[in-house]
Amino acid sequence: MNRGLDRRAFLGVGGAALICTIGGKTVALRNPEDVAAADAYARSIERPAAAAAQKAKPKPPATDVHNPKDAVDGLSFGTPQPQPGGQVREYWIEAKSLAWDVAPTGWDQFMDHAIPKPRTFRAFAYRQWSEGFAAPLGPAGIPGPTLEAEVGDVLRVHFRNGDESFGQAVTMHPHGVRYTPDYDGAYYGAYTRVGGFIAPGEEFTYTWEATPDAVGVWPYHDHGPNETLNTHRGLFGSIVVRERGARRPDVETFLFFHAFAPSITKIRRNLQCVNGRVAAGNTPTVRAKVGQDVAFHTFGGDDMLHTFHIHGHRWRAADGTFTDNQPVGPMTSVTARWTEDNPGRWLYHCHVLSHMDAGMTGWYLVEP
Amino acid sequence: MNRGLDRRAFLGVGGAALICTIGGKTVALRNPEDVAAADAYARSIERPAAAAAQKAKPKPPATDVHNPKDAVDGLSFGTPQPQPGGQVREYWIEAKSLAWDVAPTGWDQFMDHAIPKPRTFRAFAYRQWSEGFAAPLGPAGIPGPTLEAEVGDVLRVHFRNGDESFGQAVTMHPHGVRYTPDYDGAYYGAYTRVGGFIAPGEEFTYTWEATPDAVGVWPYHDHGPNETLNTHRGLFGSIVVRERGARRPDVETFLFFHAFAPSITKIRRNLQCVNGRVAAGNTPTVRAKVGQDVAFHTFGGDDMLHTFHIHGHRWRAADGTFTDNQPVGPMTSVTARWTEDNPGRWLYHCHVLSHMDAGMTGWYLVEP
Amino acid sequence: MNRGLDRRAFLGVGGAALICTIGGKTVALRNPEDVAAADAYARSIERPAAAAAQKAKPKPPATDVHNPKDAVDGLSFGTPQPQPGGQVREYWIEAKSLAWDVAPTGWDQFMDHAIPKPRTFRAFAYRQWSEGFAAPLGPAGIPGPTLEAEVGDVLRVHFRNGDESFGQAVTMHPHGVRYTPDYDGAYYGAYTRVGGFIAPGEEFTYTWEATPDAVGVWPYHDHGPNETLNTHRGLFGSIVVRERGARRPDVETFLFFHAFAPSITKIRRNLQCVNGRVAAGNTPTVRAKVGQDVAFHTFGGDDMLHTFHIHGHRWRAADGTFTDNQPVGPMTSVTARWTEDNPGRWLYHCHVLSHMDAGMTGWYLVEP
Repeated sequence: MNRGLDRRAFLGVGGAALICTIGGKTVALRNPEDVAAADAYARSIERPAAAAAQKAKPKPPATDVHNPKDAVDGLSFGTPQPQPGGQVREYWIEAKSLAWDVAPTGWDQFMDHAIPKPRTFRAFAYRQWSEGFAAPLGPAGIPGPTLEAEVGDVLRVHFRNGDESFGQAVTMHPHGVRYTPDYDGAYYGAYTRVGGFIAPGEEFTYTWEATPDAVGVWPYHDHGPNETLNTHRGLFGSIVVRERGARRPDVETFLFFHAFAPSITKIRRNLQCVNGRVAAGNTPTVRAKVGQDVAFHTFGGDDMLHTFHIHGHRWRAADGTFTDNQPVGPMTSVTARWTEDNPGRWLYHCHVLSHMDAGMTGWYLVEP
Repeated sequence: MNRGLDRRAFLGVGGAALICTIGGKTVALRNPEDVAAADAYARSIERPAAAAAQKAKPKPPATDVHNPKDAVDGLSFGTPQPQPGGQVREYWIEAKSLAWDVAPTGWDQFMDHAIPKPRTFRAFAYRQWSEGFAAPLGPAGIPGPTLEAEVGDVLRVHFRNGDESFGQAVTMHPHGVRYTPDYDGAYYGAYTRVGGFIAPGEEFTYTWEATPDAVGVWPYHDHGPNETLNTHRGLFGSIVVRERGARRPDVETFLFFHAFAPSITKIRRNLQCVNGRVAAGNTPTVRAKVGQDVAFHTFGGDDMLHTFHIHGHRWRAADGTFTDNQPVGPMTSVTARWTEDNPGRWLYHCHVLSHMDAGMTGWYLVEP
Repeated sequence: MNRGLDRRAFLGVGGAALICTIGGKTVALRNPEDVAAADAYARSIERPAAAAAQKAKPKPPATDVHNPKDAVDGLSFGTPQPQPGGQVREYWIEAKSLAWDVAPTGWDQFMDHAIPKPRTFRAFAYRQWSEGFAAPLGPAGIPGPTLEAEVGDVLRVHFRNGDESFGQAVTMHPHGVRYTPDYDGAYYGAYTRVGGFIAPGEEFTYTWEATPDAVGVWPYHDHGPNETLNTHRGLFGSIVVRERGARRPDVETFLFFHAFAPSITKIRRNLQCVNGRVAAGNTPTVRAKVGQDVAFHTFGGDDMLHTFHIHGHRWRAADGTFTDNQPVGPMTSVTARWTEDNPGRWLYHCHVLSHMDAGMTGWYLVEP
C-alpha cells in the first residue's frame, strides 16, 4: 500500500470515481481503502436462498417482505441442446487473481519513454484449461479466452472460481447468446439463480445457445455480487458467433479498451489499457500482409466512451458509411474489417486523446 | 438544507458538476446553495420583449444593440392543421413541482439492500389532465405522459405552468415533430417567441405536426430560461409518432435513464434513475408473455452517456446488426423490439457499471 | 498568468483534467503551470533519428533496445498520383499561434447576457495561404480551412510550421484519406517518419489520396509530439471527399464542437465552443432559404461526447432512422442534410445541457 496518498491524489489522476454497490453500501472507489472495504463486504455476502434452493433442493426460502416472489421465479428450465447440424463447444475456464504487469517492457514505444514503476498489481482474470481442468492452456490473460461458436451450436462452459485471494463469489455472464435464467450468470440479490453466485472453490457449467440472432462479437464478464470491482480488475473476455460455415478472417484481433482505476491498482497513474496493458509495445502488436482479410473487434471494457481509430485504414461501418474511428460504448463492440492494402507501421488507438496519452495505443505492422 | 456538507461532498458523489447558465451567470451546480442561486436568478428574469410583443401586440421592442433583429424575426406563422385523414390529438398538461420519492419501497431488490433516507426531494414534473384541465388523470409522474400521434396528425398540447414553488417560467419543447418558431417552446433570450416563456399561472397551446419524417420515438422537455436545472429536476416526457395504422407493440415501455444530481436533491448520494426512481423494485417492472411483441424505448435523460442492456434478449439495431446493449446519448432514444420467447426474471440496466450500482436497474418478468 | 488560482479552481469549472503525455511524463493539465511544463518538455524533444534519416539520408540510427526495428520500418514508399480523370488539389497551410478571442461580440445572444472578460488566449490555428505561401487567404481561423477532393483526386498539402511562440514540432494528420507512412503526419517516437515531426520554420508536403472508400467528411489535426495539447488549442480542420461530380449542397457548414480547457486558456470558465467561439452570436450564424439543399457537418473536436441538435428540423440518419439530435464522438463526424422547408430563427446546439449553457450554441436563420 502506498502510504501518504490522500483521496484526492487517487481521484485526481483517475478522473471520476467508480461507484460500486455491494452488501448494502454504495462505495465511491476513490482510494485503496475504499476498495478494501468493498471487498470485505463482498466476502461477507452469503449465498442467496433461492440459489441455494436450486443447488441443494432444500425447502424453499421463507417469505421475504422486501423481495416478494413472482410466479416466474418458480419456473424450471431445461438445458439447451444444439440444433440439428450444430455442435457442443466445450470450454473449461477458471477465474483466479494474479499479479499482473501492466507494462512488461517498461517502455512506451509510441511516445518513446520509460513507464515508471510500480507497474504490477493484483488483477482478476479468466484462464482457459484443457478438458476436465487437466492443465492450463497457456498463462492467464486479460481478456480471457475467446469463445467461438456457429449458429446452431451450444457453448458449454465449465467454470471454476479458483481464487482464494479475494475470497468472494464471481460468475461468467455472456452477452449475445441465448440462455435461461439458470445460465444468466448474474447475481440478482434474493432472486439469484444457481449460475449467479459461484463461491471460491466451486464449479458450475453454463450452457448458452448460438441462436441466429446471436451472430456477432460479444463480451462476457463477471456479474457476481461485486461485479463492478471485479470486472474492472480484468474479469472479461469475448464471444464470437458466426454464421454456419462462415469464413474466419485471416487476421482477427479482439481488443478491450479499458482503464484500471488507481484505487484498484494502488498505482498513482491513470492506466488506459488495451487488453490489460498500457502503451504500444506492451499492448497487442498485430501483424498482417497485403491481401489478407483483416478484422479488429474492439470492446468498451469499462464505464467510459472510447473509440477505435487506426492509422492508414478505413472501412464500411454497419450503417453503410465509411469510417476510420468508431465510438464504442461500455460492454459493446465494433468491428473494423478490410482487405489489407497499405504496408507499413500503423498506430491504433482510442481517439480520446487523454486515453491515448495514458496508454491506449498499439502497433499494427503490415508487410507488403 | 443539509448543513455541514461542503462543496466537495456533493461533487464527490455526483461526479462532474452540472453547468447551468441563467440570468447572465454561469453556475456550476455543485451544492444546494448553487442551485438556490440559479433559481433566484431564474425568478428575476422578465418576459423577453419579443415574446411579450407577440402576446399583447404592443409596439415592437426598442433597438437592442446586442441582439439585432433579422428579417426572419419579423415573420408571422399560422397554426398547422392535420393532413387529410389525420386527426387533432389534444392533451392538457401541467408543469408543477412536487415532493418526489426516488425509492418508494426503500429497497434495492437487485442488490438486496435497504436504500437509506433521505429519499425525497422537490422535483418538477409534467402531469396530464382531462379536457379543459377539468381533473388530473392520475398522479404526476417522471417522466410526463407519452404523447401519441400518427403521420398526418397534429398534436395540440394545452400547457399550463401550475407551479408556485420555484416561481419561474418553463415550457414544453418537443423533439421530432415539426413546429413553427411560435411553437418551438424554447427560450431564446431577446429572440424568444410566445411559446418560449410560460410564466407561473400562464397557459399556452402548442401545435406540433406529425410529418412523415417525424416517425419515431422522441423526448420533450423544458426549454425555458432555466432549462438545465428544471429538466434535471424531472421536466421531460416522450412522444411517439407511428405510421398511419401501424400496429402498437403488445407491450411498450418508455424508459428515461437519468441522474438526479446531489446539488438538486440535497441527498448526498449519486441517484442514477430510471423514470425518476432508483433500483429494481422502484423503477418500472415490465411484464410480458411468450409470443408478445415487446418494445422498450430508452432515452438518455441527462448529460451522460448511458446504454440500454437487458438480460436474456437481443434484437436487430437500426443498422442491421444484432445487439443486446445500445448506447443512448443525451435526449436521444433507442428502441429494442422483439417477439418474446424467453420466460423468467430478467434485469434491464445501464451498462455503465457505476450507474447500474447507483440504481439504474429494473425488472422484466416474462411468463411462459 | 492569473495568480491566486489554485488547482481546484481550474479543475472545478472544467470538469475532468486533460491528460497529456509528452517527453516521458504524463501530465494532468489541471492548471496553467501544468501546461507550461508540458510545453517545456515538448520544446526539448529532438527530431527522432528515423525521421531524420529519411530527411537527410545519413546512416541509419543505432540499435535501440527499447524500440527494435521491424522489417516494415525499412520500407520505402512512393508519392501517389491522381487516378485517371482525377486532379491534384493543392493547398498551402501554415500552423501558427495567435491571440484568439472566444467571444468577439462579448455577448451570449441565446441566454441574453454579457460574456465576461478575459476572453482572449494564445491559441494555435491552421491558416490557408495562396500558392507558394505568397499571401494569406484571409485571417487564421479555428477550425482551419476545409480541404476538398473528389474520388480519384490527390490532395497535395504544403504545410509550414510557422510558429515561434510555442517552439515545438507540429503536423497535419488526416482522417479518411489514404496515405503511406511518410504522409501519416503522426509522431511515433523512435518510429516517426518524415511527416511526423515538422519543427518550427520547416515545411513538408503531404500527399493524400481520395480513394473510393474515403467518401465522407473527416477531420485533420495535429499529431505531433504534443498532440493532445496543441489539438485542444485549435489545430484541427475538415476534409470533404465527394463522389466524382457529386452535387455540393447549396448551404454547407462544418462545425467543430469542442472545449477550450481552463488550464490552456488561463480563463477561469468552462468554454464549450463551436469553431473556437462560445455562444450564439459569436459562433457561426448559418443562413439558408426555403427550398435549398442544406448540410451541417458536425465534428467532435475534443475528448467529450457531444450531440448535434437543431431546432425545427429532422433528417434521416445513415442507419435509416429519423433523428434531430445525433451523438458525435471524439474526432468523428455526423452529417445532417435536408431540403429546407421551415423558415424562422432556429438554435443549433449540443444537447449535453452543461455544454449548451457554457456556449455550445449557434443560430440558423431561414428565410421564406
